[in-house]
Amino acid sequence: MKVNVPELNLPRVVIIGGGFAGINLAQSLKNAPVQVVMFDKHNYHTFQPLLYQVATGGLEPDSIAFPLRKMFKNQANFIFRMAEVEHVDTVQKVISTSIGDIKYDYLAVATGSRTNFFGLQGLESMSRGLKNIPEALDLRSVILQNFEAAVLTSDLEERNALMNFVVVGAGPTGLETAGALAELKQHILPTDYAELDLRRMQIHLIEAGDRVLPGMSMESSENAHKALSKMGVNIWLNAKVESYDGVQVHLAGGRDLDAMTVIWSAGVVGNALPGLESAVGRGGRIEVDQFNRVKGQTQVFAIGDLALMRTEDYPAGHPGVAQVAIQQGQLLARNIKSLIFQRDLREFKYTDKGNMATIGRNKAVGDVQRFKLKGLIAWLMWMAIHLFFLAGFRNRLVVFINWFWSYVTYDKGTRLIIRPFKRQVEYHDVNTTQPLVEERL
Amino acid sequence: MKVNVPELNLPRVVIIGGGFAGINLAQSLKNAPVQVVMFDKHNYHTFQPLLYQVATGGLEPDSIAFPLRKMFKNQANFIFRMAEVEHVDTVQKVISTSIGDIKYDYLAVATGSRTNFFGLQGLESMSRGLKNIPEALDLRSVILQNFEAAVLTSDLEERNALMNFVVVGAGPTGLETAGALAELKQHILPTDYAELDLRRMQIHLIEAGDRVLPGMSMESSENAHKALSKMGVNIWLNAKVESYDGVQVHLAGGRDLDAMTVIWSAGVVGNALPGLESAVGRGGRIEVDQFNRVKGQTQVFAIGDLALMRTEDYPAGHPGVAQVAIQQGQLLARNIKSLIFQRDLREFKYTDKGNMATIGRNKAVGDVQRFKLKGLIAWLMWMAIHLFFLAGFRNRLVVFINWFWSYVTYDKGTRLIIRPFKRQVEYHDVNTTQPLVEERL
Repeated sequence: MKVNVPELNLPRVVIIGGGFAGINLAQSLKNAPVQVVMFDKHNYHTFQPLLYQVATGGLEPDSIAFPLRKMFKNQANFIFRMAEVEHVDTVQKVISTSIGDIKYDYLAVATGSRTNFFGLQGLESMSRGLKNIPEALDLRSVILQNFEAAVLTSDLEERNALMNFVVVGAGPTGLETAGALAELKQHILPTDYAELDLRRMQIHLIEAGDRVLPGMSMESSENAHKALSKMGVNIWLNAKVESYDGVQVHLAGGRDLDAMTVIWSAGVVGNALPGLESAVGRGGRIEVDQFNRVKGQTQVFAIGDLALMRTEDYPAGHPGVAQVAIQQGQLLARNIKSLIFQRDLREFKYTDKGNMATIGRNKAVGDVQRFKLKGLIAWLMWMAIHLFFLAGFRNRLVVFINWFWSYVTYDKGTRLIIRPFKRQVEYHDVNTTQPLVEERL
Repeated sequence: MKVNVPELNLPRVVIIGGGFAGINLAQSLKNAPVQVVMFDKHNYHTFQPLLYQVATGGLEPDSIAFPLRKMFKNQANFIFRMAEVEHVDTVQKVISTSIGDIKYDYLAVATGSRTNFFGLQGLESMSRGLKNIPEALDLRSVILQNFEAAVLTSDLEERNALMNFVVVGAGPTGLETAGALAELKQHILPTDYAELDLRRMQIHLIEAGDRVLPGMSMESSENAHKALSKMGVNIWLNAKVESYDGVQVHLAGGRDLDAMTVIWSAGVVGNALPGLESAVGRGGRIEVDQFNRVKGQTQVFAIGDLALMRTEDYPAGHPGVAQVAIQQGQLLARNIKSLIFQRDLREFKYTDKGNMATIGRNKAVGDVQRFKLKGLIAWLMWMAIHLFFLAGFRNRLVVFINWFWSYVTYDKGTRLIIRPFKRQVEYHDVNTTQPLVEERL
C-alpha cells in the first residue's frame, strides 16, 4: 500500500520526526521547489525542555505542545502524515510506515533520542522516563497516586518508600525535576496531605560523574549543587545505580535507597531506524558528515539528537540540545536547495548560544559565552528564553500566566490524575518484612 | 481492612462523590462539629458543563477540573480518600470501598449519573459519552484521528464516513457539541486538512422529541434550532436511534446515517450503589423525601443528579443540573447540623435561576425568569456564568484567555491527540461494498 499523498513533478523531501530539527528544516523549505512530507507518530510538536513541569503539576500538557498541522497551515508545500516509520530502504529510496510506503528524493531522519536504561535490571519496566507527553502525564499520576497511597497505609516503611523519589542523572532534566519535587515538598504537599509528615519525604539525585550538570561550567555546577542541597535534595555523586526492584534502588557498593518512584534521566540513545544499521555509531546515533549526510549515503540525512557529527570542536559529537537541532535543520534546508540547484554545500558549524538550567524559584544557572549567571537574573533569563522558543502565542501566554500565578501564590495549578498509572510492584510484593503497625480491623 | 482515617469522637459524615452536590455539602460543613470524609474515584472535581469544549479542542482538561485536596486545604475537618465505593450496608452503617471499609454516622451519596445507552445494540461499546475528562479526551482523539485517517484513504465513502458526526440527544450537551463541531468545520479543519473537501463533512443532531432543548422554553428551542441549522447542522426531530455497527447509525423507520463517530448524549441513569437497590426509582435515581433522606433511611441521604425527589412542582423529580446539586448540598449541610443539634429540618425548595445553552460564536439562548435571551447578550451571559461557577481563579483566567484568544483568532488551541483511541471497528470490517477507487500500488 502506498501512502496517499499528491504525486507532484517536484523533488520530495521526506522528514521523519516533528521535533526541533524536523520543524526547522520544514519551515526553512517553505519557498523551495520541493514537496515536503513529514511523518510523526504524534500530531504535535513537543517542547521537551518543559516536560518536567508537566510531570510536576506546573503546566498543562497542551501548553507545551503545538499541533503540527496548525504550525504549517500556511505552508502550501507541506504535507503531514501521522504514522510510525518502520524501515528505510536507501537503495529503492522508499520508507515503510504504519500507513504504507512512500518514495523520497531526499530523506531527513530527525527521530531524536529515547531513554537509555543501559539494560539495567528493573529500570526499564519500573522507572519513569521523561521524553514525551504521555510519559510526563504518567509521572504526574505516579507522584500523586503515591501520596494518595501513603495516607492509606499504617506501615511506616511503606509510607516512606511511597514518599521517596530517586532521580537518576544530574543533567538539566534530572536537576530540574529534583528541584521541582523539592518545591512540591516545600509548598504544595504539606497542605494537600496535611495528614502526612512531609519531613520524611526524601528526594535523591544520583549522578555517576563527579558533579551535577556535567555539560556546564564548573562554576555553574557548583552553584547548582549548593542551591539544590539547600532546597533539601540529597545529591549522590560518583554513584551508580545497579538495579531496581520497584521498592529499592540498589547502588554499586552496596547501598540501597527505598523509593517507590525512580525517574530515569541518566542517558539517551539515538532512535535509529531499521535499514540504517550500518551507519549507527556511538550511543545509537547515526554517523553523518559535515553536511549531515548519513555515512555512505548521498540523499539521506540525519539531524538533531540522532546525528553523530564528529568535528574538531566536538570530537564525540554535538550535545543533544535544541540549539543544535534547530541550526542543523535550518542548514540542511539550505543544503537541499543547493543540491537541487547544484550549488556548493555549506558545512555545519555549531554556534553555541549557551546553556541554562533552572533549579527553583528565583534560582537558575547559566553559561553564556564567558559569563556565568546565577540566581534571579539567570532564572528570569531562563524563563524569557523558554517562552521565546515555545511555539505559539497562546501557549506563551498560558505558560506565562501559570508561572506568574505559581510565583505569586507558591501554588502549582494542575494536580490531576487524569489516567491512573498501574504500578508494576506493590510494596509488600518485594519487601518481606512485616508491617510495623498491626492493622486494626 | 479499614480505611485509614483518624478516629475522632465526632459524628462522621461520609460523602461519596466530589461533584457539585458533594463539594457544596462538604464546604457548608466547614465549621460543623463533624468529621467529613469524602470519597471520589478521581482526585479532582470536574466542571461538567465545559467537557464538550475539552472534547472539541477549545480547552485543556486541567482548566475545567480542580484538585479536591486543594479545594479543601483550609478545611480542618475534611478528609479525602481517592477510592471507588463498592457497597453500602445501611444496617451496620458501613461502606465498602476499593481501599477498605469505613463506618459512617451520616452518609451522603452524591455519585451523580452516567450515560444511559438504553441497551441499544452497539451504542455502549462504539459511541462516545461525555460525562468525564477521560471520555472528553477520548472524543477529542477520535475526532482528530478520524481526520488523520480521512486523508489516507482514497475510498470516498470511507472518507465521508470518517468526516461525519452523529450527535444523539439535543439537550444542552448534545446541542453544544454539535455547535462546536460546526465551528471546527467552518474555521479550523479547512486549514488543518486542506487536502480534504470539508463541505462533505456532515454533522447530524438526532432528537427523539419534537424540539431541541426540550428542557427550555419553546422560544429558546426555536432560536437554538434556527441558529444551529444556519451553522450547517442537520437536525432530525422525532428520530430514534435503533442501533450502530461502528459505521452506520440505523434510525427507526429505516433511514441510515454513515458516521464513524457517534456522540451519545441522549440520556443518563443514576449511579446508584449496591446496597441501596430498594430505593432505586425511575431512571436509576434514588428516591428521597423532602430532606433528601433515602427512602426507608434516617441517616442516609442522596443529593444532586442521583436524587429523585418528587414534589408538587417537580412530580418527576428535579432536572439533573448543577443548580439543584449545589442547593441540595448546601441544604443538607444545614439539615445534618440540625439533626446533630436536634433542631427541625428544612424542606428542599428548588430556586430555578434559569437555563442557558450556547450554540457558537456570539450565539446562545437563555431562559431567565420570564425573559428569553438570545444572541450576543445570551452568549456573554453564558460565559460570565460559567466563569463564575468554575472553581479556582487560575482556571478562570486560563479559560477566559482561551475564549478570548479563540474569539479573536477563530482558532482553538488544543488539538493534541494525547493518547490515541483504539477504534473498535474499521470501515471495511462492516461495509462490504468495494472501495470506489482501486488502490494504486
